[in-house]
Amino acid sequence: MRDGNDVHVCEVGLRDGLQSIQTFFPTDQKIAWIEAEAAAGMPEIEVCSFVPPKLLPQFADAKEVCAAALPIAEKHDGLVVSALMPNLKGAENGIAAGVHKLNYVTSVSVKHNLANVRMTPDESVDAFKKIVALRDEKAKESGRRVRLFVGLSTALGCTIEGQVDPDAVVRLAEKFLDAGADELAVADTVGYANPSQVKSLFKVMYGTFGDDLPLTVHLHDTRGLGIANALAALETGVRRFDASLAGLGGCPYAPGATGNIVMDDLVFMLEGMGMKTGVDLDKLVAVREIVARNLPGETLNGGLAKSGPPKGFVPASSFAAAAE
Amino acid sequence: MRDGNDVHVCEVGLRDGLQSIQTFFPTDQKIAWIEAEAAAGMPEIEVCSFVPPKLLPQFADAKEVCAAALPIAEKHDGLVVSALMPNLKGAENGIAAGVHKLNYVTSVSVKHNLANVRMTPDESVDAFKKIVALRDEKAKESGRRVRLFVGLSTALGCTIEGQVDPDAVVRLAEKFLDAGADELAVADTVGYANPSQVKSLFKVMYGTFGDDLPLTVHLHDTRGLGIANALAALETGVRRFDASLAGLGGCPYAPGATGNIVMDDLVFMLEGMGMKTGVDLDKLVAVREIVARNLPGETLNGGLAKSGPPKGFVPASSFAAAAE
Repeated sequence: MRDGNDVHVCEVGLRDGLQSIQTFFPTDQKIAWIEAEAAAGMPEIEVCSFVPPKLLPQFADAKEVCAAALPIAEKHDGLVVSALMPNLKGAENGIAAGVHKLNYVTSVSVKHNLANVRMTPDESVDAFKKIVALRDEKAKESGRRVRLFVGLSTALGCTIEGQVDPDAVVRLAEKFLDAGADELAVADTVGYANPSQVKSLFKVMYGTFGDDLPLTVHLHDTRGLGIANALAALETGVRRFDASLAGLGGCPYAPGATGNIVMDDLVFMLEGMGMKTGVDLDKLVAVREIVARNLPGETLNGGLAKSGPPKGFVPASSFAAAAE
Repeated sequence: MRDGNDVHVCEVGLRDGLQSIQTFFPTDQKIAWIEAEAAAGMPEIEVCSFVPPKLLPQFADAKEVCAAALPIAEKHDGLVVSALMPNLKGAENGIAAGVHKLNYVTSVSVKHNLANVRMTPDESVDAFKKIVALRDEKAKESGRRVRLFVGLSTALGCTIEGQVDPDAVVRLAEKFLDAGADELAVADTVGYANPSQVKSLFKVMYGTFGDDLPLTVHLHDTRGLGIANALAALETGVRRFDASLAGLGGCPYAPGATGNIVMDDLVFMLEGMGMKTGVDLDKLVAVREIVARNLPGETLNGGLAKSGPPKGFVPASSFAAAAE
């Protein structure tokens, strides 16, 4: 996987993007967004968050969104429908909703995790174990095993604690893998990272857990280095990337944090470099229209959408299509 | 040079940045900008362009700006004052103005060069030879030899021709070096490049001309990959970077071209990675205020300025200062 040209990108705009936006994005428009990105070949979409609607009314329609997303995934073979779950209740709802993958988040920074979910990271691991137990129990009942993904937040720096020790990232990763996580993500939640730091952390992660670890990089473009950090991750062997269309996103608990890296620019970079995302760039860029019309007040980021592809640009995935 | 941690950055906002902006930036404010960046430790500033004022009224004060910049450079040891010169007349004026370095630009793309200066690249080399002769003659008279820098424009793609052959870049580079160029730049004038392409071209350049070639990378952030391309160049051994404060810039002849890469974000990345620019980031970011107040209608780009440095951030250059 790490040496190959196939790259897995995951659209997180519907969750990480919308979670910091007050304007309710209408349910049918969320579904239109999912449908359009699925049609563009997006391999994974984090479609919602199973948080209490009182906390984040944006996700009050999580169940309906999943109910619509799953048939779309059936039409577009291989599309993974994932959702965030902050706790056991969220996991219950997520499993009941039938998503393929549930994402749990814990900050490596103790103070950030306490501020975010009022637990130490170790307590978050304990809470996760109950989620694993529930998942296993439900899998026995239904024969359908939901994949569990854990995002290690603030792994590259924290607005409260400043620098975060890479050893702490590795230790927490180990605990989650031992507890039953199927996949991990290293997240630069507040956009502190530089490319050297990204390379060094991912080298340690692969060195500790082996090249086969399904490891995602989740980056924010807070200080302008997001795409450069994605390049650094790619060069270290990372083949799984979170990003959001037009760079929507933020963190309600991280002051000054801005959006995720821009999916459209990321795919443009990867495809230009010969990496196959399977995503059709023109179709992807066209989806921005759905976001723009539902969030007229939001700034949509991204260079490719403004300037168009280079003259004569040939994305790597188009070779694959031609060869088939 | 290519293996070291010392990096040379050049502020091009006063030239590449302002050349596409209609609003006249007042002369005293240009000087204030130069003074403030010099005080921030900027190693080189391209302060103006010696083009006919009828073509670009923005640079009608080129002589006055140089007259003010040179004493500033004397106060800030090592600051290089450079200026663009499109032709022999510009070179004459630039040499008379006393700048340290004069920058000539030729597009590798034949059609782009014809559109830009109505000459083929080979004709531009011939015109450059006359500039070299003038420089040598003036050096004999005055004992002061102006360095001649040649920017190979559209070296990574062209809005008219599309892809540009790396061999054409090398051949044109060779002609300019043979003609007497002291330094070269490879420019992604229209923001077409991706990191693989940047690496591949710079490898060819160093492979052909040797590691000691003074080679600058000049990038635009038109499609969101500017800083990632700078990282790619850095990793290939490039230690000279053009950038503009707040990402001002464009190309009047390249439709859709946006600004240069953001100097503040570039310095932030480099310093975070342990590369020493000698620039004080806080002071650099503060200079944006001068730009903002004189160009109220312009978008100032950059993540660092909006979000501030990471908590506990220690720039590489501060180690050097502490060690002195």
